Amino acid sequence: MQFVLENTSGTARSGRIITDHGVFQTPAFMPIGTQGSVKAMTPQSLEEIGAEIILSNTYHLYLRPGVEILHNAGGLHKFMNWSHPILTDSGGYQVFSLADLRKIEEEGVQFRSHLDGSLHKFTPESVVDIQRYIGSDIMMVLDECTPFPCEKEYAAKSNEMTLRWAERCQNRFRSSKALYNHSQTLFGIVQGSIYPEIREHSARVLAEMDFEGYAIGGLAVGEPIDEMYEMVEVCNNILPQTKPRYLMGVGTPQNLLEAIDRGVDMFDCVLPTRNGRNAQFFSKNGTLNITNARYKDDFSPVDNDCGCYTCKNFTRAYIRHLFMVREILALQLATIHNLYYYQWLMRFSRQAIREGRFDVWKQYQLRTLQQEVQITV
Amino acid sequence: MQFVLENTSGTARSGRIITDHGVFQTPAFMPIGTQGSVKAMTPQSLEEIGAEIILSNTYHLYLRPGVEILHNAGGLHKFMNWSHPILTDSGGYQVFSLADLRKIEEEGVQFRSHLDGSLHKFTPESVVDIQRYIGSDIMMVLDECTPFPCEKEYAAKSNEMTLRWAERCQNRFRSSKALYNHSQTLFGIVQGSIYPEIREHSARVLAEMDFEGYAIGGLAVGEPIDEMYEMVEVCNNILPQTKPRYLMGVGTPQNLLEAIDRGVDMFDCVLPTRNGRNAQFFSKNGTLNITNARYKDDFSPVDNDCGCYTCKNFTRAYIRHLFMVREILALQLATIHNLYYYQWLMRFSRQAIREGRFDVWKQYQLRTLQQEVQITV
Repeated sequence: MQFVLENTSGTARSGRIITDHGVFQTPAFMPIGTQGSVKAMTPQSLEEIGAEIILSNTYHLYLRPGVEILHNAGGLHKFMNWSHPILTDSGGYQVFSLADLRKIEEEGVQFRSHLDGSLHKFTPESVVDIQRYIGSDIMMVLDECTPFPCEKEYAAKSNEMTLRWAERCQNRFRSSKALYNHSQTLFGIVQGSIYPEIREHSARVLAEMDFEGYAIGGLAVGEPIDEMYEMVEVCNNILPQTKPRYLMGVGTPQNLLEAIDRGVDMFDCVLPTRNGRNAQFFSKNGTLNITNARYKDDFSPVDNDCGCYTCKNFTRAYIRHLFMVREILALQLATIHNLYYYQWLMRFSRQAIREGRFDVWKQYQLRTLQQEVQITV
Repeated sequence: MQFVLENTSGTARSGRIITDHGVFQTPAFMPIGTQGSVKAMTPQSLEEIGAEIILSNTYHLYLRPGVEILHNAGGLHKFMNWSHPILTDSGGYQVFSLADLRKIEEEGVQFRSHLDGSLHKFTPESVVDIQRYIGSDIMMVLDECTPFPCEKEYAAKSNEMTLRWAERCQNRFRSSKALYNHSQTLFGIVQGSIYPEIREHSARVLAEMDFEGYAIGGLAVGEPIDEMYEMVEVCNNILPQTKPRYLMGVGTPQNLLEAIDRGVDMFDCVLPTRNGRNAQFFSKNGTLNITNARYKDDFSPVDNDCGCYTCKNFTRAYIRHLFMVREILALQLATIHNLYYYQWLMRFSRQAIREGRFDVWKQYQLRTLQQEVQITV
């Protein structure tokens, strides 16, 4: 993997990441294909909305279809017919979300499957092995994602274990080989809750370990938004300029703009896909809940200026009807639109950075976005 | 509307039907878009699988979004962004399926909405008016679809009312105008359960009324398959050669081949779409239930010879995984494949008719299809 940093505008950066499955431009937003499919999207429609890289979840793929089938398929790219880059998380986040069903130890984390209660264990070594079977272009280390709020003492202790796990992941990564005909790379993850000193320490230790890229984890878990932005700044002040930075699980269009401004290169979030399936449409003018009665006779597109398949072909009235009568097409059209908008936001952010006017672009977008949005459940 | 009968092979016929929304070739299979959407399909993907005409349901459209919104949209074609021909049923079939919720009288049929229990009435006149609002290219008369089994006396009496309703529909049709910038046509419907004399009488009276096309209704409701084929023969012996014949709600690939052989030109059925959503895939080698464990490591396409998007891009193992983890993409890929297969069956049937070898083609297909299939619930 190669990261080419091309332009900066303030602390915002634009560039390219080159993998054996092709190039993706940064800042990049990765649609989420949890179970080896971005919900309601064909690979063809993913290409059409401009996605250059997607994310998939190790925890889910490990349970179903399982590493054996993925290995027999020749890896996830072939299995799901996606020829562009794939990033996988380590599975840690999902496992820690299991709450009562998991037990954290130095060795790793024991957990029970949310599907059948069967007992499993993820270790720093095993999640590297699993991601070797998946064949993702970018793999993530196993980390403990601390909840919010989190006592400082726990955050510090947890982070020390996360750093030891990062080293074990790296050792396993360096002593193992890719299983398919393409190379893989491994990113470290900075933790430390909302404590600047722990974040700094974490970033410094990981930077010394010389990963090919760095994620900022444990944010967007309920902390005040300003704390999130502060943590991003703290991390990015230390993380090497020459390596990509990935803010995990973030976020709203506003969050993305603020994080890009602070030097983040990569994002993933369920927001555009999940909220879309709940009838919330994003646009540069804010969000629109299409099931609102005011749209029943509105024969304009969701967004007049949008170039997506949904906006070029369908009206608000029709899409509202599809949601009201629970047609599958509603989910398809919403996902297409929202992902197209997120890619549009990245594309125009990159262009603004290239032209050295990111701050002006950001301010303009923030004004027109009007309101904050939340992930729907 | 113009029907151009081009070739015959025995009693099988091929031709073209020309509407203001373009031409469709016959024999034709119409995918069902009950609520103004063929489930899990975009209009673009419908064009890609080769659909030239779709069917939509008056009962459902009348309830949601309702005629006012459809009228404001400029009709169903614009509302759903489908520029090719649309046929609508009269709503009768759905209403009669409501059982306890409806009451049949000479004037029409009273029913309660399956959604909210509200009281409504369909008359021969009102279903024409509703289909004017919908703007379908081909409208159907209101008929009573008798259940199976059905006493002969009831079938005869019901059929007389259906014939009086047909006349009232035709009067309303002739005294009203299309609401949009395209012409519409009205088909009569032959009823008579499994009684040849009633079917003959029905076909004769309707033929004298000189409709632009004729449907054969009330079949595929549980009668033995040979009775169905016999009724098709009885009707088609009387219905004029110069008009299209539409066998409503049929059927399996075997049914289609047998009915084409007996001179039917048009079909609709939920089988490829509904069974597809239940993991059943059709092919010229019979059906395949993709959730079967034998496919979990099967990295071949559903059908090696199939040219659809699903078969060209995905394996049985992947599609099985999508169904097992309940991904929306499973429904999309199954629908694409099954509708493509149904269109393939029509395309090759037309070609066999043009080349005067339909019987040989039919026999060959029936041998390879192996087993009968049933509509899944």
